[in-house]
Amino acid sequence: MSDSTSNKPLILISNDDGITAPGIQALISVMKELGEVIVVAPDKPQSAMGHAITINQTIRLTEVHMYEGVRAFQCSGTPVDCVKLAIDKVLDGRKPNLMVSGINHGSNASINVIYSGTMSAAVEAAIDGMPAIGFSLCDYRWEADFESIKPYIKQIAHETLKRGLPYGTLLNVNIPVPKEGNKIKGIKVCRQAQAKWKEDFDARQDPFGRTYYWMTGQFVNMDKGEDTDQWALNNDYVSVVPTMFDLTDHQRISLINQWNLQTHE
Amino acid sequence: MSDSTSNKPLILISNDDGITAPGIQALISVMKELGEVIVVAPDKPQSAMGHAITINQTIRLTEVHMYEGVRAFQCSGTPVDCVKLAIDKVLDGRKPNLMVSGINHGSNASINVIYSGTMSAAVEAAIDGMPAIGFSLCDYRWEADFESIKPYIKQIAHETLKRGLPYGTLLNVNIPVPKEGNKIKGIKVCRQAQAKWKEDFDARQDPFGRTYYWMTGQFVNMDKGEDTDQWALNNDYVSVVPTMFDLTDHQRISLINQWNLQTHE
Repeated sequence: MSDSTSNKPLILISNDDGITAPGIQALISVMKELGEVIVVAPDKPQSAMGHAITINQTIRLTEVHMYEGVRAFQCSGTPVDCVKLAIDKVLDGRKPNLMVSGINHGSNASINVIYSGTMSAAVEAAIDGMPAIGFSLCDYRWEADFESIKPYIKQIAHETLKRGLPYGTLLNVNIPVPKEGNKIKGIKVCRQAQAKWKEDFDARQDPFGRTYYWMTGQFVNMDKGEDTDQWALNNDYVSVVPTMFDLTDHQRISLINQWNLQTHE
Repeated sequence: MSDSTSNKPLILISNDDGITAPGIQALISVMKELGEVIVVAPDKPQSAMGHAITINQTIRLTEVHMYEGVRAFQCSGTPVDCVKLAIDKVLDGRKPNLMVSGINHGSNASINVIYSGTMSAAVEAAIDGMPAIGFSLCDYRWEADFESIKPYIKQIAHETLKRGLPYGTLLNVNIPVPKEGNKIKGIKVCRQAQAKWKEDFDARQDPFGRTYYWMTGQFVNMDKGEDTDQWALNNDYVSVVPTMFDLTDHQRISLINQWNLQTHE
């Protein structure tokens, strides 16, 4: 608020692994080199929350002092709640020049984009009109190596700040862990691979003899294309997928128009 | 399971308002006229859950006997969890000929598709390869009039059973409440209107003097097009939007390819 006369770009940050995650710490350290940073992130892990919002419960928002030179807030809601609260209660009418989400611990490539809280935070920012990027590292471990990937994060954020993005488009960036002895080969602009998770729920008995389930599953890539994010990651490239929130299948409108949709009342 | 030799089409039903909602009761009664019905739905309201899945908690699944002639299960998880559990634990390898979700109490047109648990259940079914439809009535009230809209539900489901849908496409169907004295004029195949919610959080003090928030907001339609779902609904037409889960903005791939994405390590 006091910085509103600064010439530095304003950068909003969120994630879905929570405000204490190493991934968001790495993202904050890179973004501080590019502009003024404001963080609004969940107070606990919110992975796989998709685009959930909190409408039947109350939400808390608390300023925390944990990142030097950065205004930071933890929020009891979902990643999308964080972005909505930032817009309404934190930014004081200022429009961020960039919103970045992540760095997610684990891949959000291919169909994972649909389940991802990290990407949903970026989608929400894009709906509001901010240039937005979701960053993910294909390593689920808390101690994943975020240090060596910082140059990629910085370059993609820098270009996005410089060029902007048309309304309706955001970026889904995934970063591979190269195979033993390899280095990341570069950055590829891709399409989302056609893939799915094959469910395999683990059924167990509670101490009272009743069944409960843990969700597990196997990732199935049905897509042989070499222009997909999954191909890029498997071949040690960073994948950048231009992503949109207009879900209309425009090509099928004419197909469905041929159907008989008259009712016979 | 015992019915696996039946020639009737198999129809899987879920929703996000919970298994006791009037909307799902209406949907079940229509689908029973078209085929064999299996229901797996949340045991409590799960509106606005988007595509959330439950990975950090256990899930319960319980058979309930509340709909005559229908196998029905309530699930403690999200709408997407319901579909995943149905596939892995309920359907016994049988492939539904159709999956329908709803009837949602309230609109899932335009940007609401992104937040909707109803639509996410249908998206999950479509990812698995089922022809899928999300149905919503633009009336939030529990006592909304589902009876008069049944012919539209039946005709659209009937056509989808007959024609199928290409992999990657599902239908987002919204039904208006016609203005006083009007009737529904017919069905229009549309695109998703460009719209958003403008946040307006209601800040309150708890008994201990701390602030908490309720999410509220105002729907803003930025789209003047007469080919949108929002236009159709405002003009007393049922809207049918062919919807997809490939979020790639294919048209922007060439744009982003012109960027300088080389790092300078």
